[in-house]
Amino acid sequence: MEYEEMSELKERVLTLLSEKNFRELKRIINELQPVDTAILLDEMNDKDILPIFRLLSKENAAETFVEMSYDGQELLLNSFTDAELKAVFDEMFLDDTVDIIEEMPANVVKRIIKQSDAETRKLINEILKYPRDSAGTIMTVEYVSLREQWTVKECFDRIRKIAVDKETIYNCYVTDDKRKLIGTVTVKDLLLHDYETPLTDFMQREVISVEATDDKEFVAQQIAKYDLSALPVVDSENRMLGIVTVDDVLDVMEQEATEDMSIMAAVTPSTDTYMEQSIWQIWKNRIPWLLILMISATFTGLIINTFEGTLHAISPLLFASIPMLMDTGGNAGSQASVTVIRGLALDEIRPKDALKVLWKEIRVSALLALCLSVVCFGKLYLLDGLAFGNPYTWDICLAVSLSLFATVVLAKIVGCMMPMLAKVCKLDPAVVASPFITTIVDALSLIIFCLISMGLLQA
Amino acid sequence: MEYEEMSELKERVLTLLSEKNFRELKRIINELQPVDTAILLDEMNDKDILPIFRLLSKENAAETFVEMSYDGQELLLNSFTDAELKAVFDEMFLDDTVDIIEEMPANVVKRIIKQSDAETRKLINEILKYPRDSAGTIMTVEYVSLREQWTVKECFDRIRKIAVDKETIYNCYVTDDKRKLIGTVTVKDLLLHDYETPLTDFMQREVISVEATDDKEFVAQQIAKYDLSALPVVDSENRMLGIVTVDDVLDVMEQEATEDMSIMAAVTPSTDTYMEQSIWQIWKNRIPWLLILMISATFTGLIINTFEGTLHAISPLLFASIPMLMDTGGNAGSQASVTVIRGLALDEIRPKDALKVLWKEIRVSALLALCLSVVCFGKLYLLDGLAFGNPYTWDICLAVSLSLFATVVLAKIVGCMMPMLAKVCKLDPAVVASPFITTIVDALSLIIFCLISMGLLQA
Repeated sequence: MEYEEMSELKERVLTLLSEKNFRELKRIINELQPVDTAILLDEMNDKDILPIFRLLSKENAAETFVEMSYDGQELLLNSFTDAELKAVFDEMFLDDTVDIIEEMPANVVKRIIKQSDAETRKLINEILKYPRDSAGTIMTVEYVSLREQWTVKECFDRIRKIAVDKETIYNCYVTDDKRKLIGTVTVKDLLLHDYETPLTDFMQREVISVEATDDKEFVAQQIAKYDLSALPVVDSENRMLGIVTVDDVLDVMEQEATEDMSIMAAVTPSTDTYMEQSIWQIWKNRIPWLLILMISATFTGLIINTFEGTLHAISPLLFASIPMLMDTGGNAGSQASVTVIRGLALDEIRPKDALKVLWKEIRVSALLALCLSVVCFGKLYLLDGLAFGNPYTWDICLAVSLSLFATVVLAKIVGCMMPMLAKVCKLDPAVVASPFITTIVDALSLIIFCLISMGLLQA
Repeated sequence: MEYEEMSELKERVLTLLSEKNFRELKRIINELQPVDTAILLDEMNDKDILPIFRLLSKENAAETFVEMSYDGQELLLNSFTDAELKAVFDEMFLDDTVDIIEEMPANVVKRIIKQSDAETRKLINEILKYPRDSAGTIMTVEYVSLREQWTVKECFDRIRKIAVDKETIYNCYVTDDKRKLIGTVTVKDLLLHDYETPLTDFMQREVISVEATDDKEFVAQQIAKYDLSALPVVDSENRMLGIVTVDDVLDVMEQEATEDMSIMAAVTPSTDTYMEQSIWQIWKNRIPWLLILMISATFTGLIINTFEGTLHAISPLLFASIPMLMDTGGNAGSQASVTVIRGLALDEIRPKDALKVLWKEIRVSALLALCLSVVCFGKLYLLDGLAFGNPYTWDICLAVSLSLFATVVLAKIVGCMMPMLAKVCKLDPAVVASPFITTIVDALSLIIFCLISMGLLQA
């Protein structure tokens, strides 16, 4: 729904509410997609949310609730009667329940758990035990399991009976009497065989599965690589625990990309959207990195301090090239680092490729550096020197260009190797991205510049 | 498949090939997942690829071919007989065929088109006409269409008859006799109703669809937002053209995130992976941005040139703070810009939020700047000054800290506003990311620093 439609809708809903025309209001909001209802409610004033929410049908209520912001959910949970709370959670799929429980304060969680039946409570507790960001935390336990001796007809009878409670029914899992996963079959396969054919004749016996403790990023990679619509999750003894569906993975991929981008820009990632975060949260996510990087940058200052007198004596013009050297070094480094970090994240580059990557970057950087140095020399000598009459002698231009060459090559090497090193050390490669590499490259390029200038130009 | 398994497998395949044990080789490679076979073939020497590929069963051959790198595909296409080429393309889904055609040189494309039947050729040509990155280019035209007067039983008969040729059968589309889309129904819905129920009793009449010319990023957002497994693509008169499935969207999302990250790091995005690109390609994607940014950074140098004498006369220590000011400004700016760029990409921030974002960033930046300035003042005055005995007077420290404060606030404002501005001007917000903002902020921060220093310190 476009922004304009949404504002119109909001106006209309508020008018109906003030007119107490609940009949029409009920009709309108039950015709919306639950996602859109959620967006609408999140934009309402606190006092209007509950009266509107109460007009939703049972199914719409649960689906809308799942899509709302955590703030909106908490507000509703605090206003719900016990019966309302139970009604909403009974309609929800278990993985959504667990997502909400993980974000709510303890007193709210207690109320939710209290309203669940014993079986659900047990399942919730099991899922909550899986490590953070593991397959177990994003799986759903509502899947269709079949037995290998069943015929197609028996399978369809089973599916027809239980389909209404399952998030996805198109991928079915064949388990033995110890719940071990022995095969899979899709509804499409079932439709392509006669009603009397037994499953064992055509089920797929080679199954791609993940363990509940595997990282959810790995799960996303597997689903993307093998173009699956669902992936079974098993325990260490290959017993079926649940499934991860491709729509859960879409969210994981979006989150992971956002996380990597945040970390690369020196921001602690957050699961809340920017508009949801308070200024204190934003401050908290940004200040540590700015402080660390500021302190490290002062060491670059020490280098300038050490050489300032000498450089000034040689030629005050030398200072003018420092920002250009630092910026170009930083840019060259972050080009290499971001490329490698993204390659590692998508599993297109692996730690064993380290030497290949290094050799590639050395050649690319030599080409880039050559090109930049020639342009830099020409610009300083011809434009700033001859045309604008600044006293740029050929040896000053040479010193700057040589420093630029060395800076670009070094920046590329540091830029490509740091993320590889982080990966080998089992750290997140994104952590060593641009800002850190810039700080290192700044210091290196300044030292090179000072040394080359002194070597070439000092009488 | 893990890297170790893959190397072992490669060894084994090469041994069998040299022993001419084709029977065993055939068994092994036909048991693999096509994705893994593709990875294996891409790692082989050119001369070994065709003999191994010829051992694949008809279905496996097509699926493996689709997953291979463009280089591998081109090699095979040049070695195929006409009959082999036809066999592979006949088994492929049309959207995959189009993907391959878009990447291959003209002579290869001609051969592919020549081997297709008239109907396929017409469809290929239609798809090739859609604008770059539009829904039309990623949709598949093989979907299940049903009629509203049919009963569940008639629907299942139809699905059973055509399922084998369709990429997905679980989402079915109800069209009228002018091919207009009037509703959808899932196989799950069909399974939940009696065989004699007519479709019109329960089909979903409110359909979320996109037009063939809509951007594929919008398609991905719709699918992610409404948790769909497939989305119908229609023309401007609501006639059904095809569907986009969620697995196509996974690839789109991965590509879009990679593209945004590349652009943010000042690299022209490429559809080839890093390992596939030649050093010339990498050079070509990086050099224009480095050149532009280098030239713009020299303007910062001009500012230093202008003030160098004055700063040197006030205190040579002032130069030591320049890298710290420039780096912190750059980091503060890129924190804001990356957050806003990602928010815009995920549709969490919209152009109408511009003032809200600005007001938020002003408050956050004031908090951040205050904190950084105090630490900076303390570090210069107490550590560098009193402890290490550099002549940092309190007014030098104040000048640096004040400049830092102003730089951080300005950097945040520029950082959050530039992407919003780009969005409003219909440009890709990622283009104005960190490197460009850093260049602008560098110049601004240097001017501020020089002016504040002169104002405070010049006798």
